[in-house]
Amino acid sequence: MIDLNADLGEGFGRWRLTDDEALLTSVTSANVACGFHAGDPVTMRRVCERAAAEGVRIGAQVSYRDLAGFGRRSMDVPAAELAAEVAYQIGALEIFARAAGAGVAYVKPHGALYNRCVRDSVQAAAVVEGVRTAGAPLPVLGLPGSELHAAATAAGLPVIDEAFADRGYRPDGTLVPRSEPGAVLTDPGQVLARSVAIAAGKDITAVDGTPLRLAARSLCVHGDTPDAASLARRIRDELAGAGITVRAFV
Amino acid sequence: MIDLNADLGEGFGRWRLTDDEALLTSVTSANVACGFHAGDPVTMRRVCERAAAEGVRIGAQVSYRDLAGFGRRSMDVPAAELAAEVAYQIGALEIFARAAGAGVAYVKPHGALYNRCVRDSVQAAAVVEGVRTAGAPLPVLGLPGSELHAAATAAGLPVIDEAFADRGYRPDGTLVPRSEPGAVLTDPGQVLARSVAIAAGKDITAVDGTPLRLAARSLCVHGDTPDAASLARRIRDELAGAGITVRAFV
Amino acid sequence: MIDLNADLGEGFGRWRLTDDEALLTSVTSANVACGFHAGDPVTMRRVCERAAAEGVRIGAQVSYRDLAGFGRRSMDVPAAELAAEVAYQIGALEIFARAAGAGVAYVKPHGALYNRCVRDSVQAAAVVEGVRTAGAPLPVLGLPGSELHAAATAAGLPVIDEAFADRGYRPDGTLVPRSEPGAVLTDPGQVLARSVAIAAGKDITAVDGTPLRLAARSLCVHGDTPDAASLARRIRDELAGAGITVRAFV
Amino acid sequence: MIDLNADLGEGFGRWRLTDDEALLTSVTSANVACGFHAGDPVTMRRVCERAAAEGVRIGAQVSYRDLAGFGRRSMDVPAAELAAEVAYQIGALEIFARAAGAGVAYVKPHGALYNRCVRDSVQAAAVVEGVRTAGAPLPVLGLPGSELHAAATAAGLPVIDEAFADRGYRPDGTLVPRSEPGAVLTDPGQVLARSVAIAAGKDITAVDGTPLRLAARSLCVHGDTPDAASLARRIRDELAGAGITVRAFV
Repeated sequence: MIDLNADLGEGFGRWRLTDDEALLTSVTSANVACGFHAGDPVTMRRVCERAAAEGVRIGAQVSYRDLAGFGRRSMDVPAAELAAEVAYQIGALEIFARAAGAGVAYVKPHGALYNRCVRDSVQAAAVVEGVRTAGAPLPVLGLPGSELHAAATAAGLPVIDEAFADRGYRPDGTLVPRSEPGAVLTDPGQVLARSVAIAAGKDITAVDGTPLRLAARSLCVHGDTPDAASLARRIRDELAGAGITVRAFV
Repeated sequence: MIDLNADLGEGFGRWRLTDDEALLTSVTSANVACGFHAGDPVTMRRVCERAAAEGVRIGAQVSYRDLAGFGRRSMDVPAAELAAEVAYQIGALEIFARAAGAGVAYVKPHGALYNRCVRDSVQAAAVVEGVRTAGAPLPVLGLPGSELHAAATAAGLPVIDEAFADRGYRPDGTLVPRSEPGAVLTDPGQVLARSVAIAAGKDITAVDGTPLRLAARSLCVHGDTPDAASLARRIRDELAGAGITVRAFV
Repeated sequence: MIDLNADLGEGFGRWRLTDDEALLTSVTSANVACGFHAGDPVTMRRVCERAAAEGVRIGAQVSYRDLAGFGRRSMDVPAAELAAEVAYQIGALEIFARAAGAGVAYVKPHGALYNRCVRDSVQAAAVVEGVRTAGAPLPVLGLPGSELHAAATAAGLPVIDEAFADRGYRPDGTLVPRSEPGAVLTDPGQVLARSVAIAAGKDITAVDGTPLRLAARSLCVHGDTPDAASLARRIRDELAGAGITVRAFV
Repeated sequence: MIDLNADLGEGFGRWRLTDDEALLTSVTSANVACGFHAGDPVTMRRVCERAAAEGVRIGAQVSYRDLAGFGRRSMDVPAAELAAEVAYQIGALEIFARAAGAGVAYVKPHGALYNRCVRDSVQAAAVVEGVRTAGAPLPVLGLPGSELHAAATAAGLPVIDEAFADRGYRPDGTLVPRSEPGAVLTDPGQVLARSVAIAAGKDITAVDGTPLRLAARSLCVHGDTPDAASLARRIRDELAGAGITVRAFV
């Protein structure tokens, strides 16, 4: 059994990035952009309505406040500011999720904030403080072994380990940086095979050939590539064909 | 019995406009800026905490998305966008209000949106649709006879009539535009006398000398003048001295 | 002889809208977004470099400050603010145009500002004041008979009349609003025929069947439709085939 | 002989921070905010006009794009983006400086970008590349020994060493971080004495008591404290009384 998550609603006003409608027919968890790196109120409302209609879980994809950089530039945001910014985004999404008959079911940091919270315990704790502002103990979706998961666990929040269907891994289980060869798997066959292996709890092959076992309750598929929706569909079908149930983790 | 409301939290990042702490000791309803014309997450959190501690009601002061113009420039925002933007702001504030042990108790449009919703039934209906996204039937605070109140009433939302302690009125009960003489009362004695008259349900004098009776359950005091906090305190004391109870309308 | 202009550089950060490179091989004037409705510094620099390399004139496509609404929402910006905002945008583009060995050759308002300056003499005058801040008497590109052209002429700035290859016209020479039928021509054959007619100074047919003669030194082709670049190429070829020289107006 | 510089125009829309008019009667170089951390077009125009009228040099105070954080949060902006963002800001200011009969005379990074360019050679080089986009070899104002000055020198741009009248120094000539005791001098007498010592080329006392000689052709006075304007006036008078000519470095 595994969850499939993807980043959705990453347009802004006139601009659109992800084929939200199509992706929502394949994934089980939608990381919805909340307006700080992408995502406008109309899009947030529409994605929440479609997600609720499809039975897809709605997660707050929280980010640095950085439309110009799409949240991909690490920022030294003081902890109190970061916590409040995270809470603000969750609250804004919550109103649309509730109006759609659902609710914000989890939180996942985006881009540079996601990467920074792997190692930066101060920002990780700030994100967790922001999540706790929501009142309910929302699960946090992130990398196994990250400072984010440590901070969430310390604060009594559930954590969900995720793995990436199309990213290269180093033998220690960290991702190959995008600046290095092997960072992204471009062969769909390879992505499908890796998806099944991760979901089945089998070894994958790290970038140097070492076998590697990833713990993951959720599999992230990218939403912002041209054929993202069809790849997500194929991953879902491949998992079903391998006897694996695709289901939201909450 | 009357309510005193003021706009609070109208700074942004490094900039500060209102003496929130001082005003919160005098008013009974705080119109908290939600980030679209002013207001950042740290300020919103702080104002909500202080308001809750003082027993002051928290209202969402929703606005056009216009930091550069402080929400004072009328904008032709399509209805669906405006409704979603209003909902977004309410949701963002709600998380801080709830974390402070309170909740968003009402909604009041800011600046150009407030003025536009007096006569523009389309934008008024959009604001009301945004308010309804919140689920609970939140009261709307505005001008008696406005399209905003008509739309709110039609949608089953309570409306709260407000009057202004320091603004000039025309004989028909509308405000003297800021571009005309008599738009703003600058004499504190006059402001105090008018506050008591409004609260006591007595006539005030319109700009042309005509006696005018204003229906109002809430009195708006401005928060962004240098001595706003002390004037608010004097108004409150004057009302008390006249035997009028100052109490939130909800 | 006619000029072909298109809106370019209308992405922002991660988002892209127009195929700037392809369009720059067909048009003779590039209306470059300056960051207020679209356009980021990296894109502005790149478009200026390509435009200069292709011998395409660079124009400042100035707009209301409204990324969320793509500059399509009319705003009541006070004249002094609007003038300064227009100047700011021209200055920002000028540095990239000059660095590319060219310069800002003209100014064209975008979206809601363009439409508003057809009838609103105050905003039209403010735009012209902003253009004059640049020092050099930059031509203004707009609709024949508009308040913008009247204000520019009064201020001693050259004006360039433009017509639209793919928009419906009313018998009085104004555009059919996008909310009405016949606003946009979708048949490429019709667009090509109309382009040649306009360039040749022949009658086109208004939306009600009336023959209509448009005065135009520049023809606007839209850049933000999926096949915009190939349509621009076909228009250019069709004009050439009809013996019409396609050349920048400056 | 020494130059006095201060950060000006650091408001945004409704918000104001610095008493620009008063400061412009004391300083000789105005670091004008360009819209990325503060500064709107109306303010930029007004400050340029007043600076030109007072004979004060106009410098571009360039920043990360971060209104919410006032440019005080270090950001991992890729070099190409940072260079283009710096150029954009210089170009925007240049149009107002030229219209006022002056021009942008130098460039000084603001806040977190200033601090980062002390040690980060990549961002320092990006800032210098942005400055070079302007065409003219604009001087760069910054900390002696900084990577910014190294990059500027390597690119053939003049550098101007500055010192701070009211900041604590460590024995190695770097500033005491704001998080440590002794970071800011609050005693006006001390600030005045230090200003004269720096201008006269005499030793000051580092935070640990060590004597320290600072090389500086410009003295930075802060503009965003309540009594900034009167302190700047007193510094100028004190320097004059000590026989030191206060004059712009260009």
